[in-house]
Amino acid sequence: MKSREIHLTKNFTGPVKPDYFELAEVDVPEPNDGEVQVKNEWLSVDPYMRGRMIGVKTYVDPFKPGGSMEGGAVGRIVKSKSDKYAEGDYVFSMHGWREAWTAPAKGLMKVDADLLPAQTYLGIAGMPGLTAYVGLKRIIDLKDGETLWMSAGAGAVGTAGIQFAKAMGAKVIATAGGKDKCALCEQLGADAAVDYKATDDLAGALRAAAKSIGSKGIDAYYENVGGDHLEAALDVLNQYGRIAACGMIARYNDDRPVPGPANLVQIVGKSLRMQGFIVMDHVDLNDAFIKDLSDWMMAGKVQSKETVYEGIENMPEAFMGLFSGTNTGKMLVKL
Amino acid sequence: MKSREIHLTKNFTGPVKPDYFELAEVDVPEPNDGEVQVKNEWLSVDPYMRGRMIGVKTYVDPFKPGGSMEGGAVGRIVKSKSDKYAEGDYVFSMHGWREAWTAPAKGLMKVDADLLPAQTYLGIAGMPGLTAYVGLKRIIDLKDGETLWMSAGAGAVGTAGIQFAKAMGAKVIATAGGKDKCALCEQLGADAAVDYKATDDLAGALRAAAKSIGSKGIDAYYENVGGDHLEAALDVLNQYGRIAACGMIARYNDDRPVPGPANLVQIVGKSLRMQGFIVMDHVDLNDAFIKDLSDWMMAGKVQSKETVYEGIENMPEAFMGLFSGTNTGKMLVKL
Repeated sequence: MKSREIHLTKNFTGPVKPDYFELAEVDVPEPNDGEVQVKNEWLSVDPYMRGRMIGVKTYVDPFKPGGSMEGGAVGRIVKSKSDKYAEGDYVFSMHGWREAWTAPAKGLMKVDADLLPAQTYLGIAGMPGLTAYVGLKRIIDLKDGETLWMSAGAGAVGTAGIQFAKAMGAKVIATAGGKDKCALCEQLGADAAVDYKATDDLAGALRAAAKSIGSKGIDAYYENVGGDHLEAALDVLNQYGRIAACGMIARYNDDRPVPGPANLVQIVGKSLRMQGFIVMDHVDLNDAFIKDLSDWMMAGKVQSKETVYEGIENMPEAFMGLFSGTNTGKMLVKL
Repeated sequence: MKSREIHLTKNFTGPVKPDYFELAEVDVPEPNDGEVQVKNEWLSVDPYMRGRMIGVKTYVDPFKPGGSMEGGAVGRIVKSKSDKYAEGDYVFSMHGWREAWTAPAKGLMKVDADLLPAQTYLGIAGMPGLTAYVGLKRIIDLKDGETLWMSAGAGAVGTAGIQFAKAMGAKVIATAGGKDKCALCEQLGADAAVDYKATDDLAGALRAAAKSIGSKGIDAYYENVGGDHLEAALDVLNQYGRIAACGMIARYNDDRPVPGPANLVQIVGKSLRMQGFIVMDHVDLNDAFIKDLSDWMMAGKVQSKETVYEGIENMPEAFMGLFSGTNTGKMLVKL
């Protein structure tokens, strides 16, 4: 079997250009024992891929010019020499940027394409979706009728989290930077959206938002930001409030330590709980997540927002589109 | 029935003097329906009582000159007109500073004087003991073999917490200010004690202490202090560490907000959990606590440290003794 795949022509910095990519045709080997041969049906297109094109080693190796690249993909087993997989099974892999491949079965993840559309496992049913779900379900333990503040509401975790929290019966206040992102949050179902760039008093704006939607304060905070967001959360959270701390983006780029919030003592005064987590420690929740997500999608409560390009040859265009903003929601290539 | 009780002669500031107190004799009324008549056997003597002698209203009224005062007491029912209590039952009340009293049965708390010595309900089996227990058992969920850092180890909660944590099978590192307090912590069973006043590098001292007792770091932190203690905790805690935040004394006296720890992002990086609590929300644990405590005391694992004065007439001297340091452990008056 032949496969077409996208190669880098060179490592680069600065804007992404079409001639940094070329289409190559390669042979796909027959599977040996323990291996499977897979035809990709959906390729994930993500901003993080940009980093590995620069040519500088970080925590992973950079993509090499003239070789194949990596990326999330969902494909169908065409030949299996593994006990774990049968022909026709769908798998999630990191063997994206190509039409077909042969690789060891271990390290792949089976996905149920009957339950949910195959491509959702690259987006809302994938890692960002599970991260949102774990934070709400296990860390915050969100209850029907409670009010949640979702920070970074227009991000990958935020867009999933807003919809999941609504499906769980909560009221949702989202924060995001700018009018367009706030509009997206509201379109996803947020009862109120606060543009944090447009206020000097985030805590005050959140209290006003809670009041406007008939909530008695805010019961839980999904922390994606840190800094002034966390300080506002400690101020506005109700007694027994919970904070799921999934990331503190505002802090990642600090050159040196920046003091934490001055109102941390609220954790004692209000009996708050703040808990950090990484999604990989909670993959045992994945089955429950996929089940809930499929119920919610069937009931029309949760939507997967996708922008789809077709054909391996359009992968570079889709990738460049990420940076010029041609996508709404998850960017995908269908093969 | 007659009762002798201690009255204040005047409200005062400055050092406590004997002539601020006088012994008075009063009639104890017969109980009406719903009331009980009680003879106190043990009176609690606590530093906090000093505040109500000043004559300034805070969150409670000050003690009035010429009237009776309040304080923890354990006594025995002599006459009951309440369904809840029988003659001979022991109750904890706030009707201290006197020999006997009659009052409504509601608001009293029955204590089991067969299970534990009656006076322990004013100390290690009372509120500070329950606070230590709740923090370790429910908030931290301390496991056999783990290493706990107990801050303010020589305080009321700390002295209980060190012994309870040891009884639960944990290793304990205590911190306290000064050599004498550290010696007390070790005497109570702490595997190591760190004098925080004697080091500029609390985190380093804690790491060294953990190493010296063969621990792989610190799994949980009992927070009584805040400030530099919390910052050190975020630095030294192991992955999945837990913090029970029972108080942040270092912060209570700040005139204005002081920045929080600059390393709060560790909560995400290490998947830490930090939870504030007040003991009144967890009184459902009291029965389990008394049961565990009685087992531990029977097994000689936990001791109640007490200094005992005898007779109502010596209550003022016991009280003044608190401030000159004549007590080791809980200060009590036996009637």
